[in-house]
Amino acid sequence: MAAGDNADLLAEQVKRYQPRVAALATSEAVDRLRAVRGADGAVEIVAGAEGLMAVATCPDADIVICASAGTAALEAVLAAIAAGKTIAIANKEILVMAGALVTDAARHSGVSILPIDSEHNAVHQCLHGRPRSEIRRLILTASGGPFRCFTSEELERVSPRQALKHPTWKMGRKITIDSATLMNKGLEVIEAHWLFDVSADQIDVVIHPQSIVHSLVELGDGSVIAQLGVTDMRLPIQYACSYPERWDGMLPSLDLTRAGALEFFTPEYDRFPCLKLAYRALQTGGTLPVVLNAANEIAVESFLEGKLGFTSIPVVIDRAMNGHAVESVSTLETVRRVDRWAREYARERAGELELTI
Amino acid sequence: MAAGDNADLLAEQVKRYQPRVAALATSEAVDRLRAVRGADGAVEIVAGAEGLMAVATCPDADIVICASAGTAALEAVLAAIAAGKTIAIANKEILVMAGALVTDAARHSGVSILPIDSEHNAVHQCLHGRPRSEIRRLILTASGGPFRCFTSEELERVSPRQALKHPTWKMGRKITIDSATLMNKGLEVIEAHWLFDVSADQIDVVIHPQSIVHSLVELGDGSVIAQLGVTDMRLPIQYACSYPERWDGMLPSLDLTRAGALEFFTPEYDRFPCLKLAYRALQTGGTLPVVLNAANEIAVESFLEGKLGFTSIPVVIDRAMNGHAVESVSTLETVRRVDRWAREYARERAGELELTI
Repeated sequence: MAAGDNADLLAEQVKRYQPRVAALATSEAVDRLRAVRGADGAVEIVAGAEGLMAVATCPDADIVICASAGTAALEAVLAAIAAGKTIAIANKEILVMAGALVTDAARHSGVSILPIDSEHNAVHQCLHGRPRSEIRRLILTASGGPFRCFTSEELERVSPRQALKHPTWKMGRKITIDSATLMNKGLEVIEAHWLFDVSADQIDVVIHPQSIVHSLVELGDGSVIAQLGVTDMRLPIQYACSYPERWDGMLPSLDLTRAGALEFFTPEYDRFPCLKLAYRALQTGGTLPVVLNAANEIAVESFLEGKLGFTSIPVVIDRAMNGHAVESVSTLETVRRVDRWAREYARERAGELELTI
Repeated sequence: MAAGDNADLLAEQVKRYQPRVAALATSEAVDRLRAVRGADGAVEIVAGAEGLMAVATCPDADIVICASAGTAALEAVLAAIAAGKTIAIANKEILVMAGALVTDAARHSGVSILPIDSEHNAVHQCLHGRPRSEIRRLILTASGGPFRCFTSEELERVSPRQALKHPTWKMGRKITIDSATLMNKGLEVIEAHWLFDVSADQIDVVIHPQSIVHSLVELGDGSVIAQLGVTDMRLPIQYACSYPERWDGMLPSLDLTRAGALEFFTPEYDRFPCLKLAYRALQTGGTLPVVLNAANEIAVESFLEGKLGFTSIPVVIDRAMNGHAVESVSTLETVRRVDRWAREYARERAGELELTI
């Protein structure tokens, strides 16, 4: 088991599950974990990147679940793939930024990448081993976020507090803002490309405010297979662990007659340009998705700090994408370098657009 | 290829597809087919039950599609199974009346039964080879028919003309009335039991007026897989022919954003007692579904002739079921005998309830 710096929660989990290796990001956190745990020395505890690597390649592990934020775990994921582990991935950035490297490595080692992200997990369930050649189109659903019905003028005045209230899913701050801008769905379009080997024009997004249909696959004969369920992340997590079997779940049955009508709308690119930017990044390919992702992180950070307007988020990203000379993603070093450049460049662009309060 | 007595249409099809054997129900129809076709002697033409049997066991056939009405083709289907043919079945009665015999024979010969009925085809697509043990529940959708929102009083005054107008599917007269009474869905519940080896309490029905979701499967972990599509019977027919592959279809993509909201309601057993009668027949088992089916055919016939009220249809069926001493379905002869008895008995009951106009 690995965590960032939440030593107290990891201590509880270590006590309960007795993992062979536990990792934390800093040596301070490791010290705290040792202090909380007491003198029980059965578990190896390692700090920093070395710790993450030790967890990802632990010989006893059949499957490695990556749910860390950003790309901190990228090297560890590649090491796990090289060690032949099945990868279950809840993290978007790793595929958005380094999808080419990760999927190449997985193909080379013959390991599966199982998506835990709700929409991709749904697609994986719908496909259930069907060949790639049968896919006509993937349809990712999006709740539409809290501002689905806002006008452009209303969107300009959106505050971080408003944006942090998501209608259906309870999530972290960054991803909640990404849901409000639809960038979250844009990142998922890029993820879907890497996970299912489909092109940008084979991936559609529909707004589905009820979040009951988690995604759909249209097959070559025109038939559509969908996955539905109550909105509970324990299902895709368990699915990734049990696959190819299914374990009887703790989840209640879905009562469609109580769910209310299921609605589907076309996303409005004019009001939510982030989604269009993501398609553009995927279509161009190479390092452009790295820039999209990095610039978005900076812009969202500025927005949450109250320094940038909600509608300026896509402007920052667009400018960063325009300022970038696209390269192919051949090494991890390229990804890291472009990521650093894009953050710096986006920070400057965000500065130019800073709100004067 | 086989048909009943429509020699003209079969002649067109024979000309186009050049089947090795063609069958028609009567020797008059066979004469007409020969006359229409002219002197082209390449195709063997056989009349009556013998003809059906010749088509069903034709050595060149890999798959036999049964789409005849009633149980006329029951012996032919059993012969096709014994000959090792894959069976694609669009006919309800064969499974409702003789499900035990047909599925026993199929297990014994190791042949697959592929459903063409829209809902069961949807379930088959959703399962896509998943083991029986993973099924928690099947959810069959029903359009609800033209009288979904009628009060009990309004139902009493329903005319055959009103009942023959189905909101979403264009079908034959008998099945259209069955859709209006929800008996069609009841027969499908019994079919689903035989096709997917699930018990009555594992089969739910939901009213879904838009007929976009063709049916759903709830798996053991609580996840629900659904099949959606435009309402076009060519899809399940092609699916049965192409299975386990899929052929690129002529069907247009489903545009969920134009389909309007998808609604789901609980069926009202009080207003539509036929559905409840079907569950009762399945739960009791043995020959009771034979009685249900036979009595329903007689009652619908009387209704279409203007002799029986719409709300008397379930009354006739209920009385026939109450008057029957249930046996186990061990031979085809039992099925035929009970069927004859039930028709006779139901005819008398319908006579008692006859409308005085």
